[in-house]
Amino acid sequence: MQRTKVLVLNSRAYDYASLLKSQAPWIEPVPVEEHATVPSSKLLQCKIWFGEPNIAAVLLQKGFKPEWLQLTWAGINRLMPSDLPKDYLLTRAVGVYGQVMAEYVLSYLLANEQQLQYRRDEQSRFHWSPSKPGTLRGKNVLIVGAGSIGTEIARFIQPFGGRLVGVANHQRPIPPFEHVYTLSELPQAVASADYIINVLPDTPCTRDVYSAALFENVKRGAFFINIGRGTSVVDHDLIVAVESGQLSGAVLDVFRKEPLPQTHQFWNTKNIEVTPHVAGPEIPELMVQMFLDNLSRFQSGEKLDGLVDFNAGY
Amino acid sequence: MQRTKVLVLNSRAYDYASLLKSQAPWIEPVPVEEHATVPSSKLLQCKIWFGEPNIAAVLLQKGFKPEWLQLTWAGINRLMPSDLPKDYLLTRAVGVYGQVMAEYVLSYLLANEQQLQYRRDEQSRFHWSPSKPGTLRGKNVLIVGAGSIGTEIARFIQPFGGRLVGVANHQRPIPPFEHVYTLSELPQAVASADYIINVLPDTPCTRDVYSAALFENVKRGAFFINIGRGTSVVDHDLIVAVESGQLSGAVLDVFRKEPLPQTHQFWNTKNIEVTPHVAGPEIPELMVQMFLDNLSRFQSGEKLDGLVDFNAGY
Repeated sequence: MQRTKVLVLNSRAYDYASLLKSQAPWIEPVPVEEHATVPSSKLLQCKIWFGEPNIAAVLLQKGFKPEWLQLTWAGINRLMPSDLPKDYLLTRAVGVYGQVMAEYVLSYLLANEQQLQYRRDEQSRFHWSPSKPGTLRGKNVLIVGAGSIGTEIARFIQPFGGRLVGVANHQRPIPPFEHVYTLSELPQAVASADYIINVLPDTPCTRDVYSAALFENVKRGAFFINIGRGTSVVDHDLIVAVESGQLSGAVLDVFRKEPLPQTHQFWNTKNIEVTPHVAGPEIPELMVQMFLDNLSRFQSGEKLDGLVDFNAGY
Repeated sequence: MQRTKVLVLNSRAYDYASLLKSQAPWIEPVPVEEHATVPSSKLLQCKIWFGEPNIAAVLLQKGFKPEWLQLTWAGINRLMPSDLPKDYLLTRAVGVYGQVMAEYVLSYLLANEQQLQYRRDEQSRFHWSPSKPGTLRGKNVLIVGAGSIGTEIARFIQPFGGRLVGVANHQRPIPPFEHVYTLSELPQAVASADYIINVLPDTPCTRDVYSAALFENVKRGAFFINIGRGTSVVDHDLIVAVESGQLSGAVLDVFRKEPLPQTHQFWNTKNIEVTPHVAGPEIPELMVQMFLDNLSRFQSGEKLDGLVDFNAGY
C-alpha cells in the first residue's frame, strides 16, 4: 500500500512529522519549516496539507494548491485575500483550543472572585484582612462567539453555576447556554452580564464591536476578557470604560498589532491586564489527533470538522 | 401548632433568625449573639441549637445542653474538651463549603498553570513574553482529606482532566478519586503529586503531618495548598521545603495562630502565599438551607448529615 503523503507546514514541522509517523505509520509526512525549501516536485505530490496559514498562503500564491488544507490555527484571515484560490477544502483547528482557553478564562474569573491580586498586596504589607471572596455561582457570564471554542469554555464554567448566555450568528439553542442572542442584540446581551468574554473571530461584522456606544450598555462594574481578536475592540473606548469604572477590569490577550507596541496605553492602564497572545497555545499532540480524525473523514468522504465556508468567511 | 424553638448562636444571629423565619415560618428562632444575653428560661425551652461552637461551648459549660446542635462550622474542636458533655447529637456544617473552597483551590491551581503572577510582572516591565501556559489536564492532584469537602473539591477539578488521588481514614473507593490512600500511606501518596491539597481537620492524628520527613518524599517542584488546619504543618519545615525548591510554592489559608503573627516568616518567604482564613466563607443562605434539610431529618428520626462521632473525633 502506498503511504499517504502529507505536506506539513509548520515552524516545528519536524516535530509534527515525527508525531505523525509514530501515530500513523501509513502517513509519509513531508516537513516544511519554510516555504522556500520545498522542491516543486514534492509539492505536487502532496494533495493534503497540514499546518500554518501563513506558510500555506505563500505556496497558494505561487500556484500550488491542495485538495484539503487542515490548519493548526483557528484564524483563517491570511487565506482570504481575493488573489488566493478558494476551490479547495479548508478546515480550521477545532476542538483543540477549548480546554486551554477555558483554563485561561477561568483563571481570570476565579482570580477576580477570589481577589488574588488584593490578597497578594495585603500580604506584602503584612496585613491580615479577611474580606469575603466572591463566587461564580449565580454570576451572569456572557460568551460572545458561541462557536466550538466558546461552547467548550461555557462547559467548563457550567459546573460553577454561572448563568451562561451566548452570542452567535443565528439565534438558536446551543447547550449549555441558557439563551443565545445574535450579534446585533449585543447591546441587550451585555446589559446584565457580570463577565463579558469575547471569542469572536476577525470578520467584517466583528470589527469595532466593543465601542463606547456598547460600553454605555454594560452593567456597571462588568469584567471584560478578550481572547478573540484585537480588531473587535476600539482600544481608546475600552481604556475610557475601564478608567471610568464602567468596566471593573479587562484582561486582553489579543491586539490589533502584536506584539503590542511599547507605547500602547494598555500596558500601564490600571485594571487592564495584558497577556502576550497565550490563551490558545498550540499543543502538537492534540493537533495531530485532530488531523488524524479529520483525515479518516476525508478518506471516507465524510464531512470534515471545522470546514470553512469561504463565502461566509468563517 | 406550636412553633419549633431554635436557639441561634451566631455573631450574626439576627440575620440568621430573619432568614429562618422567611424560609420556615413554623420555626421560632431565638437569636443569641453573645451567650451572656440569654435568660436561662429561654435556653431551657430550646432543644435545638444552631450556630457557632465557641458560643455553644460556653452554654454547655454552664450546664445547658441541646438534644441536637447543628454547627455552622466544619471544625468541632471547641466542643471536644473533656469537661464538656458529649451526650447530645452534634452535626458539623457539610455540603456548604465545598464549592467556595473548590473555587479558592482552583483559582490557585489555574493561576499557577497560567503563571498569572509572571504575566503581571512582565506587563509591569512592558515585556511581551509569550511563554506557554500549562494545563491541569494530566496533572496529579492529591487531596489529603477525602471527606465531604475534599470530595466536592475533587468534583470541581475532575472536568479539567486532573488525575485525582485522595487520602482518607480508611482505604475505600471514593468517587471521583482514582485511588484512595490511608493517612499512613501519605509518603507514597505525595511521591507523584503535582499538587498537594490539605483539607485535614485538626485531630491528634493529623498534627505535624507535613514535616521535613514528608517533604523529602514529595515530587520535586510540587505545589502545596493548605485549607485544612495550621496544626498539620510544621512551619519551619515547610519554609525550608519551599526555599530549597523541593516545593515550587505554597498557598496557606490556615495557621497555628490566627491572625498570623506579624513576625512570622510565612509573610515574606518567596513563593509562599498567605491568605487570611478566607477559603471557606460562611454563606448564611446555604447554611440555613443545610439546617432546614437536617431539621426535617431530625423530626422524622432519620440519620443526620454531618453527624459527629465523639469517639473518633470527627
